[in-house]
Amino acid sequence: MSKQTKDAFNEERDNLNELVLKYSNKISKRFLNLDTQVYQDGALDSRTKEMMGLVASLVLRCDDCIKYHLIQCRNKGVANQELEEILSIALIVGGSITIPHIRRAVSFWDGIQ
Amino acid sequence: MSKQTKDAFNEERDNLNELVLKYSNKISKRFLNLDTQVYQDGALDSRTKEMMGLVASLVLRCDDCIKYHLIQCRNKGVANQELEEILSIALIVGGSITIPHIRRAVSFWDGIQ
Amino acid sequence: MSKQTKDAFNEERDNLNELVLKYSNKISKRFLNLDTQVYQDGALDSRTKEMMGLVASLVLRCDDCIKYHLIQCRNKGVANQELEEILSIALIVGGSITIPHIRRAVSFWDGIQ
Amino acid sequence: MSKQTKDAFNEERDNLNELVLKYSNKISKRFLNLDTQVYQDGALDSRTKEMMGLVASLVLRCDDCIKYHLIQCRNKGVANQELEEILSIALIVGGSITIPHIRRAVSFWDGIQ
Amino acid sequence: MSKQTKDAFNEERDNLNELVLKYSNKISKRFLNLDTQVYQDGALDSRTKEMMGLVASLVLRCDDCIKYHLIQCRNKGVANQELEEILSIALIVGGSITIPHIRRAVSFWDGIQ
Amino acid sequence: MSKQTKDAFNEERDNLNELVLKYSNKISKRFLNLDTQVYQDGALDSRTKEMMGLVASLVLRCDDCIKYHLIQCRNKGVANQELEEILSIALIVGGSITIPHIRRAVSFWDGIQ
Repeated sequence: MSKQTKDAFNEERDNLNELVLKYSNKISKRFLNLDTQVYQDGALDSRTKEMMGLVASLVLRCDDCIKYHLIQCRNKGVANQELEEILSIALIVGGSITIPHIRRAVSFWDGIQ
Repeated sequence: MSKQTKDAFNEERDNLNELVLKYSNKISKRFLNLDTQVYQDGALDSRTKEMMGLVASLVLRCDDCIKYHLIQCRNKGVANQELEEILSIALIVGGSITIPHIRRAVSFWDGIQ
Repeated sequence: MSKQTKDAFNEERDNLNELVLKYSNKISKRFLNLDTQVYQDGALDSRTKEMMGLVASLVLRCDDCIKYHLIQCRNKGVANQELEEILSIALIVGGSITIPHIRRAVSFWDGIQ
Repeated sequence: MSKQTKDAFNEERDNLNELVLKYSNKISKRFLNLDTQVYQDGALDSRTKEMMGLVASLVLRCDDCIKYHLIQCRNKGVANQELEEILSIALIVGGSITIPHIRRAVSFWDGIQ
Repeated sequence: MSKQTKDAFNEERDNLNELVLKYSNKISKRFLNLDTQVYQDGALDSRTKEMMGLVASLVLRCDDCIKYHLIQCRNKGVANQELEEILSIALIVGGSITIPHIRRAVSFWDGIQ
Repeated sequence: MSKQTKDAFNEERDNLNELVLKYSNKISKRFLNLDTQVYQDGALDSRTKEMMGLVASLVLRCDDCIKYHLIQCRNKGVANQELEEILSIALIVGGSITIPHIRRAVSFWDGIQ
């Protein structure tokens, strides 16, 4: 697997998101808004929330969601050692079935340093 | 992602299905028969059943199952506005974790117009 | 298992929903609104949408969600034969792992005739 | 939690299965037949297949399915040490999220000695 | 549903954990150790990790895991407003299928104030 | 889909595993060790355990996990007829949603004869 760069990931994501909007009714559009708002600063800061989004994505085994939150975590300055601890929580909670997703996660993370 | 056409999808699916049969015992073969029968006209028409199959595939996040039911829905004349409502149900029931699958679903749907 | 009547189910649900609101921020409240709206009449009628909600709940194996949509389906006049076809779709898509949920579903359905 | 005996479990299961049949069309009935046949002796003996059914039920986290296969495993003479190894596979594959199900599994197993 | 107090939950959990140990081989015991260690202070503090464990448990829809992490979060001083944000993340990521678990979560949280 | 050979699969897996180790703390490393140990000979032989790992991977729908256990099963001399029975158990337990994974499984198995 070649390392998919952050830019390539974001570009494809943006293109597909346009298509998603084309086929989104009012309810879907409102949901997509909530999906953006839910990670913003509040009682918990957005950095913590993005790490939570990453854990959730790992145990639910969604590669694209994982990549998205990895980019956000990188942007928020999450350190390698913090990532390691997030991965270990996901591994313990979700078991060995998460390992292939963790492989792809570290490969992506390594490529967006 | 290039748009995978309906033909390419169907051809690969047919090829693999031959291999599946090669490694299917009587029980698996009977199951595969039931899997075909369950979407046929009954008290509910097959169009409604295919839309149900699509919703189930979306919330269970199975891209190939989604594509299969999208083709069936297209063949049964499901309109864009109906698709939008199916996607919004899947989005609300299954949450943001379904979004990457919805992205690939609309991209495929758009390509089989 | 004694048959939980529709009233008992609804009462407990209402009580807990009050607690949910107590601990809901604006985002959660908006989501809960979307969750109500998504099953309303549109290009697809609400009866079809409730049946879709039932299929999704069955394959995701959520007993409370199943009961909720069974009540809605009953209210919308879904017939026994239609229910049987919905259950068979869930069974084929989701496999034997759904059987315990189907057991509880038919027990509940039988009690709200 | 009081220990649910094998008899109580089987009786409730039988009662509910009658209701399931009441609401089963031909497809569901055929599926239920396949579900019985699939664990019978073949290239693999039924004892091995029941242990596989147990592993599958544990990682999919279905308590009733787990109990059913525990009874079958007990009937087929699966030893405590074999059970321990099955549980450890489920724990490693499925992660800590399986622990509550493993707790209920050992409690049930202990009660059907 | 009567409010299960923290004490009752912990007592049942402790009793069952003894049984789990009775049927645990060396691998399972080591896993259970890792499951304890993974939430301890490190690059991320244990409070943040417990909140992550809660999010993971919510989206994976495991009531006992949710209760366990709610108790830990309460012990670590997680505020109501922080809980609300955690719940909203779980709701958006996991969708309406998490609502019954959120209902039981807030009921439990409310009872251990 | 071109048939991914065993060698290509193993090489990519090894490369990514190095990256996983780079981002693994002590807990993750210990987990990865347990993941290896759990399939070794014990009260159950490793051949049976690998078949169990395959069933678990199929119902949890993890393609890479499936491929890994297929290689192990092939190395342990699992016969085609045994594979067919494993696939039929996964199909019945997990339902039609496992079919795309079964397609890819038989394609991979066929290529590592």
